[in-house]
Amino acid sequence: MDNNQTEISELGEFGLISHLTKDFPLNNPQTKKGVGDDAAILNFGSKDVLVTTDLLLEGIHFDLRYVPLKHLGYKAAIVNFSDIYAMNGTPKQITVSIGVSSRFTVEHLEQIYSGIKLACELYGVDMVGGDTSASVTGLVISITCLGEADVDDVVKRSGAKPTDIVCVSGDLGAAFMGLQLLERENKVAAGQKDFQPDFAGKEYILERQLKPEARRDIVELLRKEGIKPTSMIDVSDGLSSEILHICKESDTGCRIYEDKIPIDYQTALMAEEFNMNLVTAAMNGGEDYELLFTVPLTDHDKIEKLKGINMIGYITKPELGCALVSRDGAEIPLKAQGWSAFPKA
Amino acid sequence: MDNNQTEISELGEFGLISHLTKDFPLNNPQTKKGVGDDAAILNFGSKDVLVTTDLLLEGIHFDLRYVPLKHLGYKAAIVNFSDIYAMNGTPKQITVSIGVSSRFTVEHLEQIYSGIKLACELYGVDMVGGDTSASVTGLVISITCLGEADVDDVVKRSGAKPTDIVCVSGDLGAAFMGLQLLERENKVAAGQKDFQPDFAGKEYILERQLKPEARRDIVELLRKEGIKPTSMIDVSDGLSSEILHICKESDTGCRIYEDKIPIDYQTALMAEEFNMNLVTAAMNGGEDYELLFTVPLTDHDKIEKLKGINMIGYITKPELGCALVSRDGAEIPLKAQGWSAFPKA
Repeated sequence: MDNNQTEISELGEFGLISHLTKDFPLNNPQTKKGVGDDAAILNFGSKDVLVTTDLLLEGIHFDLRYVPLKHLGYKAAIVNFSDIYAMNGTPKQITVSIGVSSRFTVEHLEQIYSGIKLACELYGVDMVGGDTSASVTGLVISITCLGEADVDDVVKRSGAKPTDIVCVSGDLGAAFMGLQLLERENKVAAGQKDFQPDFAGKEYILERQLKPEARRDIVELLRKEGIKPTSMIDVSDGLSSEILHICKESDTGCRIYEDKIPIDYQTALMAEEFNMNLVTAAMNGGEDYELLFTVPLTDHDKIEKLKGINMIGYITKPELGCALVSRDGAEIPLKAQGWSAFPKA
Repeated sequence: MDNNQTEISELGEFGLISHLTKDFPLNNPQTKKGVGDDAAILNFGSKDVLVTTDLLLEGIHFDLRYVPLKHLGYKAAIVNFSDIYAMNGTPKQITVSIGVSSRFTVEHLEQIYSGIKLACELYGVDMVGGDTSASVTGLVISITCLGEADVDDVVKRSGAKPTDIVCVSGDLGAAFMGLQLLERENKVAAGQKDFQPDFAGKEYILERQLKPEARRDIVELLRKEGIKPTSMIDVSDGLSSEILHICKESDTGCRIYEDKIPIDYQTALMAEEFNMNLVTAAMNGGEDYELLFTVPLTDHDKIEKLKGINMIGYITKPELGCALVSRDGAEIPLKAQGWSAFPKA
């Protein structure tokens, strides 16, 4: 490394993005929001167009030894849809760019596209473009998703207010435990011919890792009940990291209650088997693709009745900071220890 | 290779894209055009939104031994702007996703982004989002560009009619010869300390390779003169490949006159030095990012007066096929021999 050179890991993924993009001015009147939320917001009259993009690289984001290609395609599309739902929008179009090494055949690509197609069909999204290329290295998948929302419907990360209730859909930590299981079985399998991993009773955590869904149902449920979140984000990097994004963008603090964090029993059993701290897995595991959002206190009774949504804490003034309240009442400051695409050496 | 597996090179890049995307239905009323043009077309009232995306991979699309990072960022943005201009639109927003290997520092990324920023400033485009990630292999740049056009202004590949005049902006083959020069000097330099390549008198072809521009000026000029092309495409893979796209999508044939193809004298000198066929370089070299378009015969006199635009042939009925008319009057059938991201083994 030369002198005066900065390691990327010193800034971290989010620090890096804001460092690199801070000097880019926004000049076009249609651009309402650029970098810094789940999606960019462009305006066309009464409609906002939402734009999000994800880059998936072999060896960083997925391991082809245990991820079936169809599932990979499905998940690559879903993670983008999830970003659009996290803006309270509806995904409408995607572009798909794929770089493939010479060990890939047309049939391999067909499997990836069949997963993307299934996701598009189920979520009503059109595939409108893309690019394919040879890759001298690994598999590269880059997807950009466009979504739509009425101007008044868009929910950003920045609208949370003190006393708002913090809510999360579904349960957390399952995808992370599914990944641990896949990695363990893959290690055990190495070198063994005809090895059959035993996944019985672990279907849920595997499915959460391999075939996640985007929470369109939650967005629709909230709309039907007349609840508009004050802020929202999807849980891709872990609850800790995501709630810190909301609090930073909204200039607030928060309290999250450990005993309120929703965890499935398969996740709990797996954490015990691995001798891992269950709350750490749920707080920092990531890839849950659940929706984390805040609602005004006045919506408490409405939310309480809704299946699949848990109230896990509340928003505070910024000077109180962000903390996890443990079962014994201790306040532990929240840190983003979520998954990073730039691990420190 | 397993039995019943198809090598990607058997289909080629364009065959592959249409094979993989043929079963994807378009369901959303806003989606006017999906895969198959320079950009997808989405409708929002009186405005069309254009979407294009490009994936650039180290070792396939660029070689960091002779491409400065700032130029790489600039070019990566420009090639996307060019696709939007080729629809007769105006680029407005881009998202940039970058995967970088561990040998990259923050300063390296700053150089790439400074090139992207310069392109955005010069073309009035907003950077609205993206993704950064570590890469275990080479540098990956994926850019998606959104553009805008009035509904009546959009020009597709499919509108050419028999008797239309085929026009091209600027000159062709220079970027290809610039690449040949860079590759030669790089080979000569290998192993030599303090080697200084001699690029004197070759600035133009180097700039065309390293720092191409998108032809906003041509789009604006045509608009000012009241000329709306019947079809348009940008020359990224070579004139042969692009005119075949127009003829296929428009269901026409064409005649292109060898002696009308615009070629700069530096391109000609370089081809002579390399003992290469000049017309082949101009027809199949690619990366020119000029605009190839057709206009009605009635626009002949208007076009003739415009600087920087050459009339190179005309559109015919489909049964006449696509041919290059050589200097001696022979008709040579056109084949797409352009650059391919999937070279045959």
